[in-house]
Amino acid sequence: MKEKGLQGLDHPSPFMRTLAGEAQAIPPMWFMRQAGRYLPEYRAVRAKAGSFLDLCFNPELASEVTLQPVRRYDLDAAILFSDILVIPHALGQKLSFVEGEGPRLEPAITKAGLDRLRGRNVLEELAPIFETVVKTRAELAENKALIGFAGAPWTVATYMLAGGPSKDPAALRSLYYDDPDFITGLIDIIIDASIDYLIAQVDAGADALQLFDTWAGGLTPALTETLSVIPMRRIAEGVKKARPGTPVIFFPKSVGALAVRYAQEPACDAIGIDFSQDPLWARAHLSGHTVVQGGLDPLLTVHGGAAMETAAGELLRAFDGAPYIFNLGHGFTPETPPENVAALVNYVRAGAWRKN
Amino acid sequence: MKEKGLQGLDHPSPFMRTLAGEAQAIPPMWFMRQAGRYLPEYRAVRAKAGSFLDLCFNPELASEVTLQPVRRYDLDAAILFSDILVIPHALGQKLSFVEGEGPRLEPAITKAGLDRLRGRNVLEELAPIFETVVKTRAELAENKALIGFAGAPWTVATYMLAGGPSKDPAALRSLYYDDPDFITGLIDIIIDASIDYLIAQVDAGADALQLFDTWAGGLTPALTETLSVIPMRRIAEGVKKARPGTPVIFFPKSVGALAVRYAQEPACDAIGIDFSQDPLWARAHLSGHTVVQGGLDPLLTVHGGAAMETAAGELLRAFDGAPYIFNLGHGFTPETPPENVAALVNYVRAGAWRKN
Repeated sequence: MKEKGLQGLDHPSPFMRTLAGEAQAIPPMWFMRQAGRYLPEYRAVRAKAGSFLDLCFNPELASEVTLQPVRRYDLDAAILFSDILVIPHALGQKLSFVEGEGPRLEPAITKAGLDRLRGRNVLEELAPIFETVVKTRAELAENKALIGFAGAPWTVATYMLAGGPSKDPAALRSLYYDDPDFITGLIDIIIDASIDYLIAQVDAGADALQLFDTWAGGLTPALTETLSVIPMRRIAEGVKKARPGTPVIFFPKSVGALAVRYAQEPACDAIGIDFSQDPLWARAHLSGHTVVQGGLDPLLTVHGGAAMETAAGELLRAFDGAPYIFNLGHGFTPETPPENVAALVNYVRAGAWRKN
Repeated sequence: MKEKGLQGLDHPSPFMRTLAGEAQAIPPMWFMRQAGRYLPEYRAVRAKAGSFLDLCFNPELASEVTLQPVRRYDLDAAILFSDILVIPHALGQKLSFVEGEGPRLEPAITKAGLDRLRGRNVLEELAPIFETVVKTRAELAENKALIGFAGAPWTVATYMLAGGPSKDPAALRSLYYDDPDFITGLIDIIIDASIDYLIAQVDAGADALQLFDTWAGGLTPALTETLSVIPMRRIAEGVKKARPGTPVIFFPKSVGALAVRYAQEPACDAIGIDFSQDPLWARAHLSGHTVVQGGLDPLLTVHGGAAMETAAGELLRAFDGAPYIFNLGHGFTPETPPENVAALVNYVRAGAWRKN
């Protein structure tokens, strides 16, 4: 476990104390995509918001959906309701969401188009999001944390390069083989914008930050370092330099044994594990370096019952005694019955898993 | 390294001696998808064959394209030209290839449809493939090996369930959560058919076998065991019981640190690593259990040059002194210039990588 100067250990939030390296008897908990379509109260707000993007840029409604799951389940942290693609949007690549098709970014980025992305004031465009953070933090009790976030540069770059979701994001590495300067140039632009964006979230009231590298998997080890580890490090260090003591969680999805590389980074205060990671492997190879978060297969919460509780129990026992944040290994899907989530929360809190 | 009874160590093929556990000064080499669209001589045969499936079932032409890359590059092994989806085809699910769209299997399998898959004589349907094996083996020199293959059951099942390529194969695990008997029933059918199919390939002249689990990644550790490791073990053991001493290579793609689980299997004579695996990690964690094969990013061969040779050199040095088969971490793409492959073969054979 790396030295943290112990800031945060007297924090009223168990989530923040865990990020500072203190193991809790019952791990704090939140869920990726905890605000979303699986919740009827979310669907009600979404119906009156207009488009998905309208909702992201409406501080009153975005704050409301951010708070909904914390109220319903008494979770330990809220995560800002927003989207990783607001950064390209603020950089001038027009973002739209087509129902049933996913996001579109127009036009797709080419090397010749990089210059048009430079020198824009992303904070002006993203101002409503900081207002959402202010409003949400004001509504949260002091023992609840508010998590801000951004997409990690490689993941954001895959959307910018493909003009939307890529069929095979890892295959975009061939663009790097063809022209490394183009890809690192794009990633540098995303890094700079993300640092500004995250500092502004902290200033608005975010207690901790998470970087999502959803498409970090399937790269070679060398490109994982160049395109994922180093860019995430640069963002975390940039934020911490400006706002010392801000905890940053890295979530590099599907990176297998390379997760160790992220966990070793001094700026990585916690690492999110996806559902393909073996909990006992993660405890043995990651917990020695940093706090671990997550791991439960979200599709188990669709089905619920004994299979969900068995898998949750395995995770909880694997990390018992270590600083651990209970969470999923990827976001909830819209089919998740909210009552299964309630059962999961009860299961974690009741603590009977420790006896099995 | 597991006990192998040392059969194969006096074999004239360096590929077969390596599978028996003997390290070579220059590793033997073949490439996944070495016969294919990147080769002009393949495209010439393909043009006169009719459909892709017609080519798979034409012993004369399939044997010709199987031999082409061995002739061109003097490789150490040929791999039967066929497709992993001939098994569902032989089980009665109609296979077709739509240009630019990939394979289609009709109708998609439901639980009610499982019975229709049972009790079919797959060997009769697949007879032309065994004729291809006979013809190919007759043309190969005795120091060249012929590799037979099948898709691993989970990968084959994902196509059967989706009626073609699934957008997110790992997400099909939710079908297992909903109804484990349906999925294990389907996998049992694929296992039985695959054992018969592979034994017939051995009887026709295949020297070694490879099982491709292209979609083994993204499952949970528990489902990796149930849906991938155990089915591959059952096939390898089934073949070896009938044809003792047949080497079987497992290729579970994108399984990260779980690759150790496959390498530990007594029936796993070699494990193929994909390009996301760290060569030094693989040498430390896999070579102690079994022979390792592969690892080079195929997209590096599209670009060629120093980046390709650097990555190849890292792999070759990582496994120097261990039994290792040089190969890719996934198949060639059609854009690969054949001259880059020739340069790669020369680089491996010249041995200068050892001095770096």
